[in-house]
Amino acid sequence: MPSMSRWVEALRPSVFATLAEKMKALSQPPICLHIGDTYALPEASACWQGMDLSSATLYRYSHPHGLPGLLQAICHKLRDHNRLSEVEEDWLQITCGATQALHCGVQALLEPGQAVLVLGPYWPLFGGMCRLLGVEVRELNCTPRLERGEPLRSLLQEVDPSGLQAIYFANPNNPDGYLYSQAELMEITRFAQDHDLWIFSDECYEHYCYDGARHVSIASLPQASSRCLSVFSFSKSYAMAGHRLGYAVGHPGLMRGLRRVANHTVYNVSATVQQAGLAMVRADSAAHYTQTWLPRYQEARDQMVEALGCPAPVAGAYCFPHFESQEQAWDFLERALEQGVVLAPGAAFGEAYGHCLRICFTCVPPEQLAEACRILASLSNR
Amino acid sequence: MPSMSRWVEALRPSVFATLAEKMKALSQPPICLHIGDTYALPEASACWQGMDLSSATLYRYSHPHGLPGLLQAICHKLRDHNRLSEVEEDWLQITCGATQALHCGVQALLEPGQAVLVLGPYWPLFGGMCRLLGVEVRELNCTPRLERGEPLRSLLQEVDPSGLQAIYFANPNNPDGYLYSQAELMEITRFAQDHDLWIFSDECYEHYCYDGARHVSIASLPQASSRCLSVFSFSKSYAMAGHRLGYAVGHPGLMRGLRRVANHTVYNVSATVQQAGLAMVRADSAAHYTQTWLPRYQEARDQMVEALGCPAPVAGAYCFPHFESQEQAWDFLERALEQGVVLAPGAAFGEAYGHCLRICFTCVPPEQLAEACRILASLSNR
Repeated sequence: MPSMSRWVEALRPSVFATLAEKMKALSQPPICLHIGDTYALPEASACWQGMDLSSATLYRYSHPHGLPGLLQAICHKLRDHNRLSEVEEDWLQITCGATQALHCGVQALLEPGQAVLVLGPYWPLFGGMCRLLGVEVRELNCTPRLERGEPLRSLLQEVDPSGLQAIYFANPNNPDGYLYSQAELMEITRFAQDHDLWIFSDECYEHYCYDGARHVSIASLPQASSRCLSVFSFSKSYAMAGHRLGYAVGHPGLMRGLRRVANHTVYNVSATVQQAGLAMVRADSAAHYTQTWLPRYQEARDQMVEALGCPAPVAGAYCFPHFESQEQAWDFLERALEQGVVLAPGAAFGEAYGHCLRICFTCVPPEQLAEACRILASLSNR
Repeated sequence: MPSMSRWVEALRPSVFATLAEKMKALSQPPICLHIGDTYALPEASACWQGMDLSSATLYRYSHPHGLPGLLQAICHKLRDHNRLSEVEEDWLQITCGATQALHCGVQALLEPGQAVLVLGPYWPLFGGMCRLLGVEVRELNCTPRLERGEPLRSLLQEVDPSGLQAIYFANPNNPDGYLYSQAELMEITRFAQDHDLWIFSDECYEHYCYDGARHVSIASLPQASSRCLSVFSFSKSYAMAGHRLGYAVGHPGLMRGLRRVANHTVYNVSATVQQAGLAMVRADSAAHYTQTWLPRYQEARDQMVEALGCPAPVAGAYCFPHFESQEQAWDFLERALEQGVVLAPGAAFGEAYGHCLRICFTCVPPEQLAEACRILASLSNR
């Protein structure tokens, strides 16, 4: 057999793989809190009720840019909700989830040998998509230190800027729910300006903000907008993860490149899936969804925080408790698994987080969550 | 703004872009024969009739490998229909069309600076996906010379093998419908063995064979199977192009790499779309589709061949007439466009084909095709 790409060959298997092996040994289906999903279902309108599913347009190639109606509706949402006042349709690209949006961005904007600064802890697939393209991932232990009151500016001063071409962060952050303030976003922008970097802003959890906290999109800062690639998803805001629908937003100069990559990877996103998304946006379902689901998720968060005795995340879908050592974290994970609750190992989210675990509180309904909390509380001796 | 990837920056806009500009100037919607699509609709079963569209499983993340039922059904199809006797589920990956299958393959198996030999004329997106990753595309003017009786072996002797890592061809070929014989597939295999190359085999049009001609999958040759990445699509065989559903098949050693890329680009293919695909495969719809639609497409081909006075393609969805010069071909294209029929310029399919045009005969229903044929015949003075 000929040789494979050395970058693909070198990618270390995720720590999730170890977990999968252990899960196979369980005698009954566990409560899975290691994934990032929602137990909510989308509105009926997005389940295609009343849609003409025999329409030929659903089965033909559609425009790779995205359905015109969906592009329009997203423009309005971005201008009104995210305050991205400059956005027109040529700032957008519809993608198979935020995952494909980021993948296209990495391929369009970075080259092998360049580096991207990643504010940790961070979503592991982003690291993987960089490494698979020969792009170096430079991790900065960031949000736990911001939580402790260290200023972002001083953290960024530690960074080696050689070969750096971009900075990536998620806001709200996955895995720890950190929500960046406007002042911190300005700090990131200044850093990007100083070193002429692209900014990858992952805003999948934009609607998951608790206790009245408010999410700000970095691209709403005028100094940032021309160097930002912001990505959004229907997975969390509309409970449509299985559909794989998301979008990338950026200056048309940048999008010209991203679109070339998108056209050469999936061509168009399934027209039916886009119709489902459009039904949601038209029904202003994000607002509806937020009103309906946010209080439930906030309650779920509170239960989990109580069970673990960890700090309450301001946003997002996860608790990210810290243990005294990596051994203690693994021991907790293994004992939870024995009792039928699956947690995600912190090491998946960056080198500095082996002593942490990620626990999703939005992915199972209340009864299962209560059962999981009971088990985790007993392991925490609470 | 920081700089983009130089490969993305350098990609020349497709000649289709010029066409799009010209189309905007038309006073009424043209008959579009420049795309590759089907006017057929999928079976009702794949239009989700009777499916439980409120099932939560459709809206949750699903396994990135593919729905187990679909993987199983495809295994059977590949063993029975394509005679790939070794295939098990770990040989498969479900993808967003054959496009994503090829993209993942290129990224997993090739590196910047390596070259891929492409048997021309060829599907332009494949060239683009290589160039966007810094992979050199080495074109061999192939199938028109095979048609003229030159042996494949002597064509392959012309090839500069330095830096070559793979060979790509489509069988049946897009754009000219050439169908490779078993002996020619053996020749390609020998060449790949001699130079230790991957083989990318694009078999999207596997069911479009006329006059009883038979398609052979190169991976059914035992000498080829361990170095083959074969890709298939639901777009043509099941009239589901808009859904974006396809699959990659290869030795598990190769698929391990391809799967890593797939997981980092779209994660899972939409569960609903996979369900639609499964409904089709379960209904043995390819056989049904072939019985129903193949005679219609063959008739459409015959009409087009008659109108153009060109050789009849043995397979595929296109006529690829040759003109005496590039100017004559463009002149024909422009005059057709003035009369409301859009054709694809041959230059899109490789450097050597500026004197050709690609004309799809499967994408519009009979009345529109008859009208297009009338116009094209008058331009051909027939």
